[in-house]
Amino acid sequence: MNTTYFKALNEAKPVEIFPGFIGRFVHTETITLVFWEVKAGSIVPEHSHIHEQMANVLEGSFELTVDGNSEILVPGVVAAIPSNIKHSGRAITDCKLFDVFSPVRQDYKKRSEEG
Amino acid sequence: MNTTYFKALNEAKPVEIFPGFIGRFVHTETITLVFWEVKAGSIVPEHSHIHEQMANVLEGSFELTVDGNSEILVPGVVAAIPSNIKHSGRAITDCKLFDVFSPVRQDYKKRSEEG
Repeated sequence: MNTTYFKALNEAKPVEIFPGFIGRFVHTETITLVFWEVKAGSIVPEHSHIHEQMANVLEGSFELTVDGNSEILVPGVVAAIPSNIKHSGRAITDCKLFDVFSPVRQDYKKRSEEG
Repeated sequence: MNTTYFKALNEAKPVEIFPGFIGRFVHTETITLVFWEVKAGSIVPEHSHIHEQMANVLEGSFELTVDGNSEILVPGVVAAIPSNIKHSGRAITDCKLFDVFSPVRQDYKKRSEEG
């Protein structure tokens, strides 16, 4: 299935970026799309990055805190995190999430290309 | 729910961009995320744009043709469409899709701000 234009996620290398957060990545020149499988109770510690980010829940519920503002993400709610704004998160249940980043997460790209 | 960082899709204005394609949009500075509800049989005619695009099916199946290469998109398959590459599509079933664009789709933004 993996061709120039079409990518099967189940053929993408899974990488555990934070404990309990398994990501599969697709990159273009300017966008990184990440599909996450997350175990209930897993935590993303507060951090920030130059990349803009949109966070979305496909299944489950996930508490996201952006610049001190907390919200429970469920399907149908989109979080838009500007460049360099601190954020953190916690999986309330097992979750399936996806994140969009721009520019490309070169750090994730490197991780998925390792060994 | 709509705050600086969190957006409820059911509060976003639905816009019919192509016949049978109802989109709801969230924009950052560099990314547009679109959630589509599409009726079976609806067609996106061949077109191209400067924006990079990632196309994803959440529910249903959608035939996408990129630069002459056709694939049936179902959940778990990502299409990555480079800048200025011709593409077209057809909803095989009723579908829920999402697209990621970068840079921002100013045309969609304008449409959702009208009237």
